[in-house]
Amino acid sequence: MQTVTLNVEGMSCNHCVSSIENAMKELGASGKVDLAAGKVMVEYDENQLTLDAIKEAIEDQGYDIV
Amino acid sequence: MQTVTLNVEGMSCNHCVSSIENAMKELGASGKVDLAAGKVMVEYDENQLTLDAIKEAIEDQGYDIV
Repeated sequence: MQTVTLNVEGMSCNHCVSSIENAMKELGASGKVDLAAGKVMVEYDENQLTLDAIKEAIEDQGYDIV
Repeated sequence: MQTVTLNVEGMSCNHCVSSIENAMKELGASGKVDLAAGKVMVEYDENQLTLDAIKEAIEDQGYDIV
């Protein structure tokens, strides 16, 4: 397992938290959003998933990785 | 029909817009959120619905009427 913390811009409320955490779940990863800090911590199996796929899923929800 | 504009605090993103507009639709009213202005315009049938019911539905979504 691999853990990465991403800085993500545009997350403003609990709906945003859910949309990102659900997107991570759909990928088979586990995401935890720190709204105040603008960070997303993702734990994932590096044999199953690439970091790029994770970033893309977050961007697809309408957020920017910074 | 009656139209009212409410000042609503805490709406921060398009998820918030959807949650409020959907709540209005469920009541049988028609809501339009102006995110930048922090306003919700609601058109409703005053024979079917009270303003208090509308305010309550917005507050139930986690927002404050100011």
